[in-house]
Amino acid sequence: MQKSTENGIGPVRVAMDAMGGDHGPVETVKGAISAAKATGAEIILVGDPGPVEEELAKHDTYGITVSTVASEDKIGDDEHPLAAMRTKPNSSVVVATRLVKSGDADVMVSMGSTGGSMASAVLTLGLMPGLDRPCIGGPFLGLAPNTVLVDIGANIDCRPALLLNFASLGVTWARTYMGIENPRVALLSVGSESNKGNKQVQEAYQVFQDSDMNFVGNVEGMDFFTEKAEVIIADGFVGNILIKFTEGLGRVFAAYANKRLGSALDETTLSKFSAELVQLTNRTRTNGGPLFGVNGPVIVGHGSSRADEILAAISTAVRYVDLGMVDIMREDLVSMNKQAEAKATGSGAGR
Amino acid sequence: MQKSTENGIGPVRVAMDAMGGDHGPVETVKGAISAAKATGAEIILVGDPGPVEEELAKHDTYGITVSTVASEDKIGDDEHPLAAMRTKPNSSVVVATRLVKSGDADVMVSMGSTGGSMASAVLTLGLMPGLDRPCIGGPFLGLAPNTVLVDIGANIDCRPALLLNFASLGVTWARTYMGIENPRVALLSVGSESNKGNKQVQEAYQVFQDSDMNFVGNVEGMDFFTEKAEVIIADGFVGNILIKFTEGLGRVFAAYANKRLGSALDETTLSKFSAELVQLTNRTRTNGGPLFGVNGPVIVGHGSSRADEILAAISTAVRYVDLGMVDIMREDLVSMNKQAEAKATGSGAGR
Repeated sequence: MQKSTENGIGPVRVAMDAMGGDHGPVETVKGAISAAKATGAEIILVGDPGPVEEELAKHDTYGITVSTVASEDKIGDDEHPLAAMRTKPNSSVVVATRLVKSGDADVMVSMGSTGGSMASAVLTLGLMPGLDRPCIGGPFLGLAPNTVLVDIGANIDCRPALLLNFASLGVTWARTYMGIENPRVALLSVGSESNKGNKQVQEAYQVFQDSDMNFVGNVEGMDFFTEKAEVIIADGFVGNILIKFTEGLGRVFAAYANKRLGSALDETTLSKFSAELVQLTNRTRTNGGPLFGVNGPVIVGHGSSRADEILAAISTAVRYVDLGMVDIMREDLVSMNKQAEAKATGSGAGR
Repeated sequence: MQKSTENGIGPVRVAMDAMGGDHGPVETVKGAISAAKATGAEIILVGDPGPVEEELAKHDTYGITVSTVASEDKIGDDEHPLAAMRTKPNSSVVVATRLVKSGDADVMVSMGSTGGSMASAVLTLGLMPGLDRPCIGGPFLGLAPNTVLVDIGANIDCRPALLLNFASLGVTWARTYMGIENPRVALLSVGSESNKGNKQVQEAYQVFQDSDMNFVGNVEGMDFFTEKAEVIIADGFVGNILIKFTEGLGRVFAAYANKRLGSALDETTLSKFSAELVQLTNRTRTNGGPLFGVNGPVIVGHGSSRADEILAAISTAVRYVDLGMVDIMREDLVSMNKQAEAKATGSGAGR
């Protein structure tokens, strides 16, 4: 399959953090090989040579391109990401990210510590203009597949201008990756009127109103399911609480269904239904999500991912590169900020 | 049934806002009569005489005590509550609340505009010391029946001291109404460490740590289901988004179950299961919730409530009065604030 890479030709080259995730090379190697077969991507497995080679030897790699790059150790979930970057400068996620920086890979995929991926991406690839940190967004809920929430990372106490930047990234994602024409943008709040919400949202409302966004105002918690907006913007504090709450709720719903319908449904139907409930509430984590705002394609997935989810994350990565998402997002962001600045200057001069 | 009222004897006297809610007297009168039969409460129906008498005439009131008190008009969901208090000084919710103030009723129950109930309660009954507004709390999720969330009203941008007051109210509720011994209190955040969270939560962490609360630190979104704490404290901004999101999600889950299991389950089992999913995610709204912090018992329910839910709300009201919740909550709140003040003064002197 012909893919448009950074050079415009050849298959997408995926630097896979083979050590990342709860199950390490056993799952990452298996998932990466499946992904190579499914997508035609070229896989570069980055990890401790011993365990990676050992796993690789177990699989049939006929017809696909898989190579390995050695790294030392991994950044754990319990480590401070920036500190770990210093103490483990050749850890798998860092080496994999460097391959993107040097042009030897088109995208980095990791199921390891999200903090580690973020730190590595920011320090190695840098951020787009106007951003202090990357954000994470996407249709986090399989039950509302066309509703994108940004930020589900953990950008806390965001200034209105930063929220507007998140919105720009979310809009580009919705338009280009999801194919939604002129996505409607809304702020997540506790009422639809402009004076509803906390100080942050009230201030942001004005900034969004003044922008060229297709801003439809505030939406409320239930509006993830009412199709009032395709891109919903929240501070990472709220976004992170929501996504974790949803994941927990999905698991509890699944357990409830198991208990309640155990006698009414056959085991296969029930376990499939329960698994769907969990998957529908863990969308971003199962499919992997890009780090928005980083100057290079980086896809992060959940630590608990198994081979199937790693395949899905790599598929996301391939499409992300194919579409040239990073460049389009950067261009849109820069253009949006220029317009906002011009308006601010214009209104300043008119005062 | 003997109930302890304000006077310590006789049945609990419930002032029912008969005009409140989407279905008006048709459902409120029906629900109130069922509740009188089920709980032994005495019902005072407050509303426009015509429609209330008309509904009342349709029911068998043998063996129960039901009276009516005339009011004029109702406060709608679309009205500004404080303005409506002035323009409609004899609306049903206001007259019903006045009955509590004058001692002619023990508790007010309304399915009308929550804002209207709040405004009426605050202006007529007043607030407990230390509070600017009432808050709403309770086990908002049937799937996590022992986890209380405060505030699910809409107190926005709360100071840490106010969050501590919410916690006091929530703890008294959990201990006295729910029978949980020494409830554990947590702040809703994006990580368990004390430095995780937005500025508000970080500041509150210190205030909670310094208090005599059984404070267990921060919890995350998934911890509504992990039994780490019985009382979870959030700003009303987050709480309100969460509860509305959950209600929406429950309905979407129910629709999904209907679609997916339509061929595998018989209609009765499926519609019962779907209804349960909705109910489990609408707990506070189906059972009615007290306004915490008001100097008198006020129970609010969802506008869409039907007779069954009104019965449930009145049952909540009866138990709330029986237990003397308002007095206990006020005593605990005052005592907590005295301790906090003593500590603050103590540490101030020691500097």
